[in-house]
Amino acid sequence: MKLEHIGIAVKDLESANQLFETLFNKPHYKIEEVASEGVKTSFFQVGESKIELLEATNEESAIYKFIEKKGEGIHHLAFEVADIDAEIKRLSEAGYQLIHQTPKDGADNKRIAFLHPKSTNGVLVELCQEKS
Amino acid sequence: MKLEHIGIAVKDLESANQLFETLFNKPHYKIEEVASEGVKTSFFQVGESKIELLEATNEESAIYKFIEKKGEGIHHLAFEVADIDAEIKRLSEAGYQLIHQTPKDGADNKRIAFLHPKSTNGVLVELCQEKS
Repeated sequence: MKLEHIGIAVKDLESANQLFETLFNKPHYKIEEVASEGVKTSFFQVGESKIELLEATNEESAIYKFIEKKGEGIHHLAFEVADIDAEIKRLSEAGYQLIHQTPKDGADNKRIAFLHPKSTNGVLVELCQEKS
Repeated sequence: MKLEHIGIAVKDLESANQLFETLFNKPHYKIEEVASEGVKTSFFQVGESKIELLEATNEESAIYKFIEKKGEGIHHLAFEVADIDAEIKRLSEAGYQLIHQTPKDGADNKRIAFLHPKSTNGVLVELCQEKS
């Protein structure tokens, strides 16, 4: 398992890109819109992990609601696993509450599933696996 | 630059340790108390990054205040830099607000400095450098 990315909810992707570009001293390497999630995302590579900035593209987006409730900031941690179906089964059996019992398509060519933050000390955890 | 660790504020270190041990399918590798910060910490290695669980040991602790205000959850991201003094200078000059203008001692044999989350889209960012 490794930390694949950290998702950060931002109000304005363009200004956030500039901030993190200066912070990391390197540019983002791609912009991707995920229409089904109502988000526009920007990615930075930092060591083996990515930083994913997330801007809502509509008011139904989970990112819009998160910012309304909590303000900008870290939204989720995504851990890459070798077999997402097996991990969902293992963690369900261990008593963790899964938001998705079966993986769905996410950004960056991944299958993803979220655990409920109630199960993980307030941390929204995403499991992800690269699509083969 | 790499993501050195993610700090997660928890109310009870013992139960949080069990949760994250099951999530990562591996045990924490150390417990460290930092009396000057009023925290007891626990570390997990996940790929090249660490997860640092933080429990407050008194009500003056920043972690106690964070949980009172926001609840349990991700508290900060720490990025390892090669020269923390040079990074503080570079980021100050670029307009970032530093909480510490000079590094202070942190857990895990590090010199550390925090950027103000106002400068970084609500994300509390720690810079750190291993003491030589």
